[in-house]
Amino acid sequence: MKTKTKNWFILAFQIKGSVIPVIYQRVIGFGVFSFIISVLYYFNLPVSQPIFASIIPSIVLGLLLVFRTNTAYERFWEGRRLWGNLGNDARNLAWQIGAMMNDIEPEDRAKRIAVLRLVAAFLVACKLYLRSEPVNRELEQLMSRSQYLQLKTINNPPLQITFWIADYLQQQYQRGNAVLHYSHVVFLQTTVKSMMESLGHCERILRTPLPLAYSIHLKQLLLIYCLLLPFQLVKDLGWGTGIFVGLISFTLLGIEEIGLEIENPFGYDPNDLPLDTICDTIKYDIEEFISFTTRFQLK
Amino acid sequence: MKTKTKNWFILAFQIKGSVIPVIYQRVIGFGVFSFIISVLYYFNLPVSQPIFASIIPSIVLGLLLVFRTNTAYERFWEGRRLWGNLGNDARNLAWQIGAMMNDIEPEDRAKRIAVLRLVAAFLVACKLYLRSEPVNRELEQLMSRSQYLQLKTINNPPLQITFWIADYLQQQYQRGNAVLHYSHVVFLQTTVKSMMESLGHCERILRTPLPLAYSIHLKQLLLIYCLLLPFQLVKDLGWGTGIFVGLISFTLLGIEEIGLEIENPFGYDPNDLPLDTICDTIKYDIEEFISFTTRFQLK
Amino acid sequence: MKTKTKNWFILAFQIKGSVIPVIYQRVIGFGVFSFIISVLYYFNLPVSQPIFASIIPSIVLGLLLVFRTNTAYERFWEGRRLWGNLGNDARNLAWQIGAMMNDIEPEDRAKRIAVLRLVAAFLVACKLYLRSEPVNRELEQLMSRSQYLQLKTINNPPLQITFWIADYLQQQYQRGNAVLHYSHVVFLQTTVKSMMESLGHCERILRTPLPLAYSIHLKQLLLIYCLLLPFQLVKDLGWGTGIFVGLISFTLLGIEEIGLEIENPFGYDPNDLPLDTICDTIKYDIEEFISFTTRFQLK
Amino acid sequence: MKTKTKNWFILAFQIKGSVIPVIYQRVIGFGVFSFIISVLYYFNLPVSQPIFASIIPSIVLGLLLVFRTNTAYERFWEGRRLWGNLGNDARNLAWQIGAMMNDIEPEDRAKRIAVLRLVAAFLVACKLYLRSEPVNRELEQLMSRSQYLQLKTINNPPLQITFWIADYLQQQYQRGNAVLHYSHVVFLQTTVKSMMESLGHCERILRTPLPLAYSIHLKQLLLIYCLLLPFQLVKDLGWGTGIFVGLISFTLLGIEEIGLEIENPFGYDPNDLPLDTICDTIKYDIEEFISFTTRFQLK
Amino acid sequence: MKTKTKNWFILAFQIKGSVIPVIYQRVIGFGVFSFIISVLYYFNLPVSQPIFASIIPSIVLGLLLVFRTNTAYERFWEGRRLWGNLGNDARNLAWQIGAMMNDIEPEDRAKRIAVLRLVAAFLVACKLYLRSEPVNRELEQLMSRSQYLQLKTINNPPLQITFWIADYLQQQYQRGNAVLHYSHVVFLQTTVKSMMESLGHCERILRTPLPLAYSIHLKQLLLIYCLLLPFQLVKDLGWGTGIFVGLISFTLLGIEEIGLEIENPFGYDPNDLPLDTICDTIKYDIEEFISFTTRFQLK
Repeated sequence: MKTKTKNWFILAFQIKGSVIPVIYQRVIGFGVFSFIISVLYYFNLPVSQPIFASIIPSIVLGLLLVFRTNTAYERFWEGRRLWGNLGNDARNLAWQIGAMMNDIEPEDRAKRIAVLRLVAAFLVACKLYLRSEPVNRELEQLMSRSQYLQLKTINNPPLQITFWIADYLQQQYQRGNAVLHYSHVVFLQTTVKSMMESLGHCERILRTPLPLAYSIHLKQLLLIYCLLLPFQLVKDLGWGTGIFVGLISFTLLGIEEIGLEIENPFGYDPNDLPLDTICDTIKYDIEEFISFTTRFQLK
Repeated sequence: MKTKTKNWFILAFQIKGSVIPVIYQRVIGFGVFSFIISVLYYFNLPVSQPIFASIIPSIVLGLLLVFRTNTAYERFWEGRRLWGNLGNDARNLAWQIGAMMNDIEPEDRAKRIAVLRLVAAFLVACKLYLRSEPVNRELEQLMSRSQYLQLKTINNPPLQITFWIADYLQQQYQRGNAVLHYSHVVFLQTTVKSMMESLGHCERILRTPLPLAYSIHLKQLLLIYCLLLPFQLVKDLGWGTGIFVGLISFTLLGIEEIGLEIENPFGYDPNDLPLDTICDTIKYDIEEFISFTTRFQLK
Repeated sequence: MKTKTKNWFILAFQIKGSVIPVIYQRVIGFGVFSFIISVLYYFNLPVSQPIFASIIPSIVLGLLLVFRTNTAYERFWEGRRLWGNLGNDARNLAWQIGAMMNDIEPEDRAKRIAVLRLVAAFLVACKLYLRSEPVNRELEQLMSRSQYLQLKTINNPPLQITFWIADYLQQQYQRGNAVLHYSHVVFLQTTVKSMMESLGHCERILRTPLPLAYSIHLKQLLLIYCLLLPFQLVKDLGWGTGIFVGLISFTLLGIEEIGLEIENPFGYDPNDLPLDTICDTIKYDIEEFISFTTRFQLK
Repeated sequence: MKTKTKNWFILAFQIKGSVIPVIYQRVIGFGVFSFIISVLYYFNLPVSQPIFASIIPSIVLGLLLVFRTNTAYERFWEGRRLWGNLGNDARNLAWQIGAMMNDIEPEDRAKRIAVLRLVAAFLVACKLYLRSEPVNRELEQLMSRSQYLQLKTINNPPLQITFWIADYLQQQYQRGNAVLHYSHVVFLQTTVKSMMESLGHCERILRTPLPLAYSIHLKQLLLIYCLLLPFQLVKDLGWGTGIFVGLISFTLLGIEEIGLEIENPFGYDPNDLPLDTICDTIKYDIEEFISFTTRFQLK
Repeated sequence: MKTKTKNWFILAFQIKGSVIPVIYQRVIGFGVFSFIISVLYYFNLPVSQPIFASIIPSIVLGLLLVFRTNTAYERFWEGRRLWGNLGNDARNLAWQIGAMMNDIEPEDRAKRIAVLRLVAAFLVACKLYLRSEPVNRELEQLMSRSQYLQLKTINNPPLQITFWIADYLQQQYQRGNAVLHYSHVVFLQTTVKSMMESLGHCERILRTPLPLAYSIHLKQLLLIYCLLLPFQLVKDLGWGTGIFVGLISFTLLGIEEIGLEIENPFGYDPNDLPLDTICDTIKYDIEEFISFTTRFQLK
């Protein structure tokens, strides 16, 4: 219990992972502006305008901020669900390729293991693609040299990898029922299709931010709201106006900024999805699965 | 970091993509009306009525605006999801046609390429249909002359294109298992069916706006709210009433207008979906796929 | 732009489609009641009770109204989605029956056209059933005399029509693979099943309003809120109390009434779904499809 | 129109179906407590504490109540959807059993009719199970004596009935394609599976209320809020405090109570789902279907 | 009725299951801090600052708390749904294995029963895995000694169990149609796949808490809000400030804490899902099913 309470306070003051590093400049900016208003007030200029409080109803601003928060979180969570699906599909496909296909010729086993590694490569390629990074060594280790060179010239690498997997399945299927029964091939291709679709949906989240008009309108309201604040408060707070307007702007800008940050959850921000961990887990699971089927000679 | 903060302020003042060009007239209108109230107040007419503040509770107006915003955004996002599905299905179908069908006679390849282009044509036709535009040169390049002429006479061009694709599949299937195995045909037709359905759902979004009664009621509340504002504020703001009522009406009308704009996300507004980009990507992907299968002689 | 602003004001004053015709009596009622309070106030009775403002927190009332609005709109939109599905399924089924079945005997074509019309008849029958109207001439034109007479005696006509369509498919299927391949029949029956299910879901929306306790509780809160209003406002508004309480009650009762109106979206209200248009479109599409397949002799 | 307005007022005063019978004691309790505060105030004790208004922000309480309302309604509506699915599946299964299976031996027809009645029995058994009632005469009429006796000893009767139906299908299927084609059996078993799943989801709704901590926390907030109310209002309302605190507590407790009532929608409360009506409709439909197939000798 | 009202009050004072044991320290902390402010006020230090009320608008804090509550509850409810699916799938799979497979050799029955127990073992293994507990005696009883030993060395035990089940199905299927018809195997494998997927989704809920930035930002706002409270209230409440600030912080911290507690619903908290009960029910159902099929010799 004690630890829980202690943790609570420690977390409240944590800076890494919070939005403070991103917004502190704007917060200071509004604070300095407010301090200037305090100075003007001190010299008896007519800057005290409590009526300004009714210009932007805080309920309207609050509801817009929550709308922004909700939509951003929904994208974050949908992104997480899609990567959950990718992981599920990768494991499923690995298992299905392991269990539903029979090796006839000696080189079949090697081919099968190569395809299992391509399944892991697909996830890595998705990660790189969603981060707009070129193919790298992590991918190179999971495929043949010729495939890697081909991938370097291609616009959409993960899509190409699904084509390879699907072609492999189709070729095995065309060798006859002894290798892969026709009632299974649709089951397998459906999993590949589902992986392609998850990729497509991730792209959708990546390429379609909140409609621009909302972002602009929200920023405008925040700007007007924070700039009007010192005029309302200077009479009561005097020299403290700067600090308090800073606090309020921190509250509001923080909510907006988190929304902005998690709206595209595929990057390197501390609040983004742990894509590297997910990819590593799947790579590990698939290698374990390969060594397992080799050791026990399941088929 | 610095750039981020700078960008934040630049975005807050951006006019292109914001709703300012659409609503500035109404905002000025309410401002002028308020200015007249200031004049009347100056001549000591009894226009100051702070009690008017309680006529329309701002919470009710705020919640209605958020309801409007949510429903509009849901349509926008559903529209985006449907176009994501269309893109996914087009790529899938292209791949499936490439991988699951075998050429027997020499002209089969040419027919197959023609159908792959029809898949891209479907998306272009959807785009034109949802924008109520006639078939154009963009479509002409993706199909035969006779198909194009037929399409010109038809009410629902994209639906017709799916009929062509589905008929092609059905004809190939009826040539026997050597061309297209019967276990695959349902897989392929399901993708075509899914494309038809996405089109139908886009039509639904296009043809069913928010129930009229809500639009009217919301406009009435906004009108009453903004017209009562100067009476509440004139006592405190004096000659500034016009400017401040303008600001408030800008806040509220802006939220309503964005809702109106993204409710139908298939048009040319700056906040609409980038349908042209999506279509171009798919056209490019399919041409790449065609040249790829020709070069490497996959089959 | 100018037109847009003009339209905005025109729409704000539109009466057709708004809820004014339904609620004006209640609004006048509350106005008259408030006027009586003004009279009592004029004669110095102790009717001014500003503290009444805190009896029903406007936030609670506002949130309940929004809950009501959301649930009603969700039903409206689900109803629209179901009719979108019905339209999609009807088009799909028509195309599937056209493409996947082969005519062997001469009368097969006539039977096929009759079934295509039954698909359109299903939508019309749904429309009538959801509006609690008897079968009518519109239906009579889409089926044989004997079917029409049988339908007149039956409790759930659209369900009966799906039985006919499904039986037709089952009979064709039992004639052998030359007529309808067994891998296709599940594809076709799935579409029929989906139509039955959409009908079932429409019935659910029709027969299950918002739980009665919510409707009653909301009405009670609205009643108490509006009856307490004049006591709060009479001191400040004097003889204007009646007009302003009318305005406020108009705001609130309007939101409740729209919810009530769109909760069952299958009727004839101006805010209901355009079921007649949807049915006409599908009838037109299917007739075009029939004439098209006859002209071009697709099979 | 007039009727509508009249109905509106009648409904607002309706007691049956409202929550008044359940909460009136608590409401009176808070009223009496407030009256005591008035008495103390009359004797000049320092009970007037307007500042208490800020202890529990009404926005927080309101949002929690709405959260409670939303989750309860979602369960209600999901329960309704599940019963819609059960009805759809029962009708579908009846039709599928009627159309897709062929009678070969004379007793096949009798067996088929027995199974159709079991489909209706499944819904009745679900209803009883969700209400924790034992099997009764209503069930007895829909099955054989031996089945009924077996059911009496079993923990989960509806699950047992789906086992019977599924076993029947499996047995027919194993008699060969002439009775039930193998392409159909998955279609039929899928419907049975879907019925089992709907039952499982109903159990989930029944057995998982809102997390206890929310219920307790909400009750605590309501209790504190209502107990602090008379201290805030006694100065302005004097002897009327009791009545008005009663009104306010009625507002708030009513919202909580409705949530509680519809959270488990399978009982006998006036606001629960009309399970009896749904079961009767399906029983009627299936009997009509049986007599229909017997009369017209469909097969 | 009386009982209901009594229960209502009893529940409101219940401590077990409420968040009081977790948050009482923080609540006391804020209370003591406020008491110190009272003391300072008593010595006429300028600690009374009513204007502080506007620093953090309670609407913004309230909406953030509700956002937190909603997302936490959605995870809780999704977790419950996934476990509902796991239960459904386990029952379905048990029934399918019981009904769709035929025993040919004598040891087939024993193998079948072993697999049925593995289905129950899967749920138990999921429970342990989600609670980060090692495999234990409960699992040992449901599988062979060698399987148990193997499981001890493996990273993801439930995944391994699904591999065993799926391999068993695949092996039976490869023995030919007499044992398991090929049209059934996809039906069975789909259920296994669905179980794997539910496990993957539970992992997703477990491993992805609310983005850290939200947790931190919310804690910061709560901290600022509660620390500013005594300055606002001390003037009016005097020595009572401590108690009342404690009450308010209890209200707010309680809502946050419940969110935290149900966000990961797989643990041992009183508000977590009853995973033990669900597992026991499924174990019981499967044992009943085994004894039932043995007794009646269904096949």
